[in-house]
Amino acid sequence: MPVKNLIVGQSGGPTAVINSSLYGVVSEALRHPEEIGHVYGMINGIEGFLQDSILDFQEALPGDSLDGLLYTPGAYLGSCRYKLPESLDDPIYPKLFEKFQEKNIGYFQYIGGNDSMDTVSKLSRYAERIHSDIRFIGQPKTIDNDLIQTDHTPGFGSAARYVASTVREIVLDANVYEKPSVTIIEIMGRHAGWLTAASALARKYVGDNPMLIYLPEVDFDVEDFLTKVQHCLGKNCNVIVCVSEGIHDKDGTFVCEYDSSVGTDSFGHKMLAGCGKYLENLVRSRLGVKARSVEFNVSQRCSASMLSATDQQEACAAGVFGVQAALKGETGKMVAFIRQVSLDDSYHMKCDLVDVNEVCNQEKTVPTEWISKDGTDVTEAFLRYARPLIQGKVEVPSGSDGLPAFVSRK
Amino acid sequence: MPVKNLIVGQSGGPTAVINSSLYGVVSEALRHPEEIGHVYGMINGIEGFLQDSILDFQEALPGDSLDGLLYTPGAYLGSCRYKLPESLDDPIYPKLFEKFQEKNIGYFQYIGGNDSMDTVSKLSRYAERIHSDIRFIGQPKTIDNDLIQTDHTPGFGSAARYVASTVREIVLDANVYEKPSVTIIEIMGRHAGWLTAASALARKYVGDNPMLIYLPEVDFDVEDFLTKVQHCLGKNCNVIVCVSEGIHDKDGTFVCEYDSSVGTDSFGHKMLAGCGKYLENLVRSRLGVKARSVEFNVSQRCSASMLSATDQQEACAAGVFGVQAALKGETGKMVAFIRQVSLDDSYHMKCDLVDVNEVCNQEKTVPTEWISKDGTDVTEAFLRYARPLIQGKVEVPSGSDGLPAFVSRK
Repeated sequence: MPVKNLIVGQSGGPTAVINSSLYGVVSEALRHPEEIGHVYGMINGIEGFLQDSILDFQEALPGDSLDGLLYTPGAYLGSCRYKLPESLDDPIYPKLFEKFQEKNIGYFQYIGGNDSMDTVSKLSRYAERIHSDIRFIGQPKTIDNDLIQTDHTPGFGSAARYVASTVREIVLDANVYEKPSVTIIEIMGRHAGWLTAASALARKYVGDNPMLIYLPEVDFDVEDFLTKVQHCLGKNCNVIVCVSEGIHDKDGTFVCEYDSSVGTDSFGHKMLAGCGKYLENLVRSRLGVKARSVEFNVSQRCSASMLSATDQQEACAAGVFGVQAALKGETGKMVAFIRQVSLDDSYHMKCDLVDVNEVCNQEKTVPTEWISKDGTDVTEAFLRYARPLIQGKVEVPSGSDGLPAFVSRK
Repeated sequence: MPVKNLIVGQSGGPTAVINSSLYGVVSEALRHPEEIGHVYGMINGIEGFLQDSILDFQEALPGDSLDGLLYTPGAYLGSCRYKLPESLDDPIYPKLFEKFQEKNIGYFQYIGGNDSMDTVSKLSRYAERIHSDIRFIGQPKTIDNDLIQTDHTPGFGSAARYVASTVREIVLDANVYEKPSVTIIEIMGRHAGWLTAASALARKYVGDNPMLIYLPEVDFDVEDFLTKVQHCLGKNCNVIVCVSEGIHDKDGTFVCEYDSSVGTDSFGHKMLAGCGKYLENLVRSRLGVKARSVEFNVSQRCSASMLSATDQQEACAAGVFGVQAALKGETGKMVAFIRQVSLDDSYHMKCDLVDVNEVCNQEKTVPTEWISKDGTDVTEAFLRYARPLIQGKVEVPSGSDGLPAFVSRK
């Protein structure tokens, strides 16, 4: 009987460091040839695996070429949004485990967010039921930072660094003219405002832009918003407001839906322009001031230009830790981060394992005590939490064309 | 009589290197204390100068702190969009020259695009009329690259580097899922498509994304566009299309105006969603495929994360050259770039002077021979032109908070 093989997959939305997690898993697995045979990757997650779409890392990225993963955003293996059936009696489970057996899989590592942890939970529970000895480990990943039982998630630090530095640049851009103006910046986060909160890191002094920050954790009130913007314009000619895409009123209606009845295109389809665009128009018409909106869009999750070295190293460390845990016999666990603060206030992070069944399908939002009383800012406690996560520049290697050299399957 | 002073201003939209031009001007001026006394900056261009809003660089950015300009996007001095009256008989001209005399100005340097060169043209012509010996020099600046009589403009290289690398990242992001998808990327450029053309630099191999590139230099046809997108989907699961904001049909109607009759907000204001959003909806409804759009927005002109070292050095060199030219007695000129290609195909740039009267209010568009016959791509000749301009990474210094340290007046 040959030694067991390891298979790793990626799932959910891309981040700047999901491939650093992958690097950690693959490089550590390759360091244990006496315990792990082939190191496989599922192409397009569990969905692709069901169609036998896999690769062998020693063929796909041999030797040093594996290092390219550390600098490549996106998801090298491709991703999927596929939810396994709730019932473990579904025929898909024996089918999957048959495929695991065919490939002689002994170790399964899955990198993703809430939904991906749900996959790890179901597979590990099914394994227990059929007394399979395959070890299932979840690797956390999400720019949204909304996984519970971990201090933070890989992917958040780089996205937060992108948000903070890009907001700082847009403040410079807005300050160019002396005419009063309002810039609304829309940042990802439907239910959790972590990433929008990170915009506060852009400030260089007390009272600097962004002057207002709105998270989905607080009910949004249009009239109160306008009053506050007007007040800010009295203090600063150019006002920057950062809003989460998921801000909603007390009835739960998303602000981006306010104009849906009007914004239909020529084909009669609803055109959801986003809450940033809506608020831009609102400010212009109600306050009679120059207004514009900027949607950060996909770059906040796929830019390598603002990789946080801390985030990259932690993603890699989590990958390594997850493989070591599996080798020690662990299964049904997610790798989690525990923050350790030294007496000198310096930041250290330690990997740990938590029960994946408790993590999946849960959401961690920004705690109320980290949001200012009037709901338009974050507190110093949040800044102390977030600041260490965005530290460190990463030098992305350039190709012969002078642009970032990324690795890809195509 | 003390030596004459120099005053420098910035005008029009910000770029990543408009402050590198400023650095070149100020640092060179400070190197000639026997000929130049104070080095002043107009705050908010000629408009601010009219209100006596100026600063002295030796007070504002003494010593090494001037170096911060090399890494700071935006416009350190602030900007304006102010057009001087056509008639030189307007009383504003004697008023301006009175102010010049008050401040003992002998040298006037103005960094900007077409409109700013118009300012330099008018002031130098008025100076000639009244026999003033103030020397007026224009410093080119625009991400649009649309100034004539210069090989290219400072600002374009960094914006092009931002566009090329960000498109490359979005290609990775799009490739994550196996489901057919179309991503429309909207890039700045109302009349000239230089920046959108630069998206072709993102390709890593022939046939790579962006598969279609639409410039305002070519009339846009919606049905032809849909046919081509459909064709591309047959070759590649995830299709990226780059479009200039200014694409228009053969009647001159901007594509972004197609939906203006429908896209009104709750206040009855037209909501111009941009041509990217329009095409996204068009693709989704007509081709029944997943579609999304990304607007690069202000980051393409104000991001320091993708500074081109070539662009930065050239902007600085132009600033230096312009001061030296003024000291030699030149006036009514714009600094221009002449490309010198060596036998080994290596790129060199030389500064020259051109008549500012011939440059102002003109626009240079992408030449027809650099656009593919079917109007959906650029040729290898364009790539050879653009590639040298985006070369070289710039290490932006970090502050104590770990984020880019920019200089600002506030």
